[in-house]
Amino acid sequence: MTPLPNLSRLPFSDDLGLGTRTGPGRSVNKDGTFNVRRVGVPVFRSYELYHSLITMGGFRFLGLLFLGFLVTNALFAAVYVGIGMDQFVRTGGNGPLDRMLDAFFFSAQTLTTVGYGHISPNSHLVSAVAALESLLGLLSFALATGLLYGRFSRPHAQMRFSRNGLVAPYRGITGFMFRFVNRRSNQLIEVEATVVFTFLEVESGLRRFVTLVLERSKINLFPTSWTVVHPIDEASPLHGLTDEDLRKARAEFIVLIKAFDDTFSQSIYQRTSYTAEEVLWGVRFRPMAAPGADGVLEMDVDLVDATETV
Amino acid sequence: MTPLPNLSRLPFSDDLGLGTRTGPGRSVNKDGTFNVRRVGVPVFRSYELYHSLITMGGFRFLGLLFLGFLVTNALFAAVYVGIGMDQFVRTGGNGPLDRMLDAFFFSAQTLTTVGYGHISPNSHLVSAVAALESLLGLLSFALATGLLYGRFSRPHAQMRFSRNGLVAPYRGITGFMFRFVNRRSNQLIEVEATVVFTFLEVESGLRRFVTLVLERSKINLFPTSWTVVHPIDEASPLHGLTDEDLRKARAEFIVLIKAFDDTFSQSIYQRTSYTAEEVLWGVRFRPMAAPGADGVLEMDVDLVDATETV
Amino acid sequence: MTPLPNLSRLPFSDDLGLGTRTGPGRSVNKDGTFNVRRVGVPVFRSYELYHSLITMGGFRFLGLLFLGFLVTNALFAAVYVGIGMDQFVRTGGNGPLDRMLDAFFFSAQTLTTVGYGHISPNSHLVSAVAALESLLGLLSFALATGLLYGRFSRPHAQMRFSRNGLVAPYRGITGFMFRFVNRRSNQLIEVEATVVFTFLEVESGLRRFVTLVLERSKINLFPTSWTVVHPIDEASPLHGLTDEDLRKARAEFIVLIKAFDDTFSQSIYQRTSYTAEEVLWGVRFRPMAAPGADGVLEMDVDLVDATETV
Amino acid sequence: MTPLPNLSRLPFSDDLGLGTRTGPGRSVNKDGTFNVRRVGVPVFRSYELYHSLITMGGFRFLGLLFLGFLVTNALFAAVYVGIGMDQFVRTGGNGPLDRMLDAFFFSAQTLTTVGYGHISPNSHLVSAVAALESLLGLLSFALATGLLYGRFSRPHAQMRFSRNGLVAPYRGITGFMFRFVNRRSNQLIEVEATVVFTFLEVESGLRRFVTLVLERSKINLFPTSWTVVHPIDEASPLHGLTDEDLRKARAEFIVLIKAFDDTFSQSIYQRTSYTAEEVLWGVRFRPMAAPGADGVLEMDVDLVDATETV
Repeated sequence: MTPLPNLSRLPFSDDLGLGTRTGPGRSVNKDGTFNVRRVGVPVFRSYELYHSLITMGGFRFLGLLFLGFLVTNALFAAVYVGIGMDQFVRTGGNGPLDRMLDAFFFSAQTLTTVGYGHISPNSHLVSAVAALESLLGLLSFALATGLLYGRFSRPHAQMRFSRNGLVAPYRGITGFMFRFVNRRSNQLIEVEATVVFTFLEVESGLRRFVTLVLERSKINLFPTSWTVVHPIDEASPLHGLTDEDLRKARAEFIVLIKAFDDTFSQSIYQRTSYTAEEVLWGVRFRPMAAPGADGVLEMDVDLVDATETV
Repeated sequence: MTPLPNLSRLPFSDDLGLGTRTGPGRSVNKDGTFNVRRVGVPVFRSYELYHSLITMGGFRFLGLLFLGFLVTNALFAAVYVGIGMDQFVRTGGNGPLDRMLDAFFFSAQTLTTVGYGHISPNSHLVSAVAALESLLGLLSFALATGLLYGRFSRPHAQMRFSRNGLVAPYRGITGFMFRFVNRRSNQLIEVEATVVFTFLEVESGLRRFVTLVLERSKINLFPTSWTVVHPIDEASPLHGLTDEDLRKARAEFIVLIKAFDDTFSQSIYQRTSYTAEEVLWGVRFRPMAAPGADGVLEMDVDLVDATETV
Repeated sequence: MTPLPNLSRLPFSDDLGLGTRTGPGRSVNKDGTFNVRRVGVPVFRSYELYHSLITMGGFRFLGLLFLGFLVTNALFAAVYVGIGMDQFVRTGGNGPLDRMLDAFFFSAQTLTTVGYGHISPNSHLVSAVAALESLLGLLSFALATGLLYGRFSRPHAQMRFSRNGLVAPYRGITGFMFRFVNRRSNQLIEVEATVVFTFLEVESGLRRFVTLVLERSKINLFPTSWTVVHPIDEASPLHGLTDEDLRKARAEFIVLIKAFDDTFSQSIYQRTSYTAEEVLWGVRFRPMAAPGADGVLEMDVDLVDATETV
Repeated sequence: MTPLPNLSRLPFSDDLGLGTRTGPGRSVNKDGTFNVRRVGVPVFRSYELYHSLITMGGFRFLGLLFLGFLVTNALFAAVYVGIGMDQFVRTGGNGPLDRMLDAFFFSAQTLTTVGYGHISPNSHLVSAVAALESLLGLLSFALATGLLYGRFSRPHAQMRFSRNGLVAPYRGITGFMFRFVNRRSNQLIEVEATVVFTFLEVESGLRRFVTLVLERSKINLFPTSWTVVHPIDEASPLHGLTDEDLRKARAEFIVLIKAFDDTFSQSIYQRTSYTAEEVLWGVRFRPMAAPGADGVLEMDVDLVDATETV
């Protein structure tokens, strides 16, 4: 079996930087990350801290904030108890637990700068530690403020891709196609698509990459959905191939989308890929948009995956 | 009637991504949004929260903040009343309303970290809830801070377009033209204009799109106003057409402006459109700028709509 | 006198968008702003607020903040006095001034959320107003925080241009040249220069614009200074002209600089211009940089204006 | 000795803006900064403040914040002591040190807005100074918040370059090569490399610069590592040169990397250089990536420097 014989002299630049020795697994995951594991990196890397705090899950982030609040208060409470709770003006009970909890809550009231004053320092040493703690509190909440907002406002594309790529009829021939919608209300413009076809060459065991020619690779406005089409004409590397050929060659369609977010003035990028198993043959997409009763175009984003038999 | 016969073989890329089945209504609204309705999207979408909070009206946003403040305080007040107001040091009255209001205002003083201390926790349980509330308060105000400033500083073009497009005399022939000024004082540079002419093809019922050739499509500096002109020469798709032809074909001129904001180092985009009904024939723009008494050029932005009969 | 006869058929795009009817005054001021006055704009424009607050002078901005603080406190003090200062717990004197000042300082302690508590609400009405004030305080300081930091961190080029342009010897002929240094320590890369020569045409009274060909228009790295040179060869519009010709034609050299700030990942732009009066003839720039005692190149930024007779 | 004779007529633009009179020292330091010293600049420059505060070391920055906190409190304490500590409600001791420390801690509690209230103003003058101090505190912490977060979130490339450049076998000939990995987890795309070869010309004593032709100068995706290769074919300025030739000519390979950070939507730049002494001959890079047991590609970033004898 010698499928894809016409690809033996591909230009280097088409491998996208993924390298030709990536093995039989997929190159790009469904969510756009690379299917690569990095080893030899230390567990804690200061230069990763910001990235981790911004990209970790929301509940984990809030849990971390809460934990940090508890631990900091516990540490300062230990210091206050060590100094002696008799150096405070306070009205609460005098058992060991009472003293510890009073120290803890005084710390919390200082760290958050709420400072009711019903517990207050009665010695210069306590005042000094409390001044330090309130300074630390302000700076910590400064960082937390930035992180919380940075997480909230981080630009990220919310393109929803059709679950499957299709090989479907297109203008008398067939074409490889997929489509996507913008799930967010922000207005995207100057949307560009690049599709790279990759497969494992039987003879060499190397991955080959070909950038596919698209019916159109850029749209200026993106109000509804976009069906990206690669026409399978005689010049196409897919010409004459079957579903089975693609599966055997562990083929994969890597999709790169670039757009400009009009609302926040930022370029956004999104990636996905379709493996041979994720490509359907003999079906086509059902239309997603039609003029409504009042003449305004209506787009049903739930239909992005909808196909029908040809 | 076969108007616009020379447009039957238009390149695909000229449809801007709007699609050819958009119906007889306008494609782009006057304010630059797309005339499309999205259906099938859930009412609450977490990935839309930031976008909504940034783009909603100012009074609605402030109302939402105020409401959030009231509701949060009411919830915590309920918790404090549930724990028992006897677990507080306070001097106020002892009726049910007094207790509830004291709980509410203690909550407000904790959430904002103002913490006067005239009402203060007198049990560890209350202290714990108050510590939690002050933490929540700091984080909420962190988000509110970011949102408030994000709204305030969001880059947005404030180009003021002339109310009408004109078909007016231009260098011996006529031209389609409109003009715009920058209402803000920020200095815009590298301003680019694209104008797409779209109409409903009688035979097919499809929308057609043609990018119009402009006298000039980019200016480096934008100190005053810019009159964008498409000369209606023999190569123009508008050549020989009348006002009535445009109205019948439900013609529309879609305008895309791109610029770089020199003050904030950001690219900004703005869109508008002129339907056939918004295009005037037989008038021309009156000049907006003239040297003042001291030789300095004076631009009257109020004149942006001003026309005079030819 | 017909100076500059070869410029009668200039392309339109060379006028940079400044227009040809700008009169005899300079087009671009020394600091890069446009020499245009806008009339017909209302005094207060909400869409200008952010821009004004970010770009106004530092002392004016701080004064405005201080004034806002005073006025807000005075307004709330008036409300508190209106409600009645007997509805407060306080220990101060009871004269009218004492009451007013106590109201004022209670307001200040609430707005800043410092909340000592030595003056504290003793009625639900006062508590409600104070809760509102602390909410307002947090939101106002949120905005002030953003503005203060926005002002502080705003990217702005700090290119220092030589006071004069020169017409000086250059490789056997002469050239129009100027130079500039980066006053900040941030590393600029991909620096581009555009120089447009403009003059008043005698016959038409219109301003003409020609983009000058430069020895080089872009440098990748910008460690020291850059002398931008337009060689006055036979193809140059300056060929054969004298100092007096330029002055009579009210000539001006408009300079546009674009660069990428490596430290903050932002594009920055800066403009300036040299009128005929600001161009020196018969002198040349003295070198600014020379290897120091240890072989490291030393650049003396004070020498940017330094010239010497040819 | 006349090495490199074919470089006498280099285009100007290849010097990257570094200038030809930079002397025998390296042009670009290992960390990408320029090997230039600026003289004649004043010690304090307001336009440098932000840049310094953002780029200084972390401990120095925190130390500066702490020092600022101490000094501000000391200054306000001096004012309060000057006014007289009898104008405060306080319960502490009455010795000179007690009074001074009470003033200091009252100041700290005001500046941080913690405001316990156990020390509180008992005169209008003290209240006025305290109101001013709390306003100053809020604005200072606003700036500190911004700076802290600005430092934390500042985009910076963390490319790790191989310690040495190599002249190693490449496709039948040899090539100059180096490689680098991204130490951070953020996903970089559209990575571009430029390599400029520079050396001291013997006859003129001037530095010459040549941009080297690369096997490929851009990769779309950057999941693992990239080995940048300049093939030393007959057209290469390195053709026929030896290690000793490069050292004598004080040769240097200047490397410019540009990429787009997919996580934060920002362009990032990084530079480095290899002097002749940092170039190894007769060794080649060992592979860094190989498919793991589960077929997923594994990259060992620790191997970036690893070479083996040819």
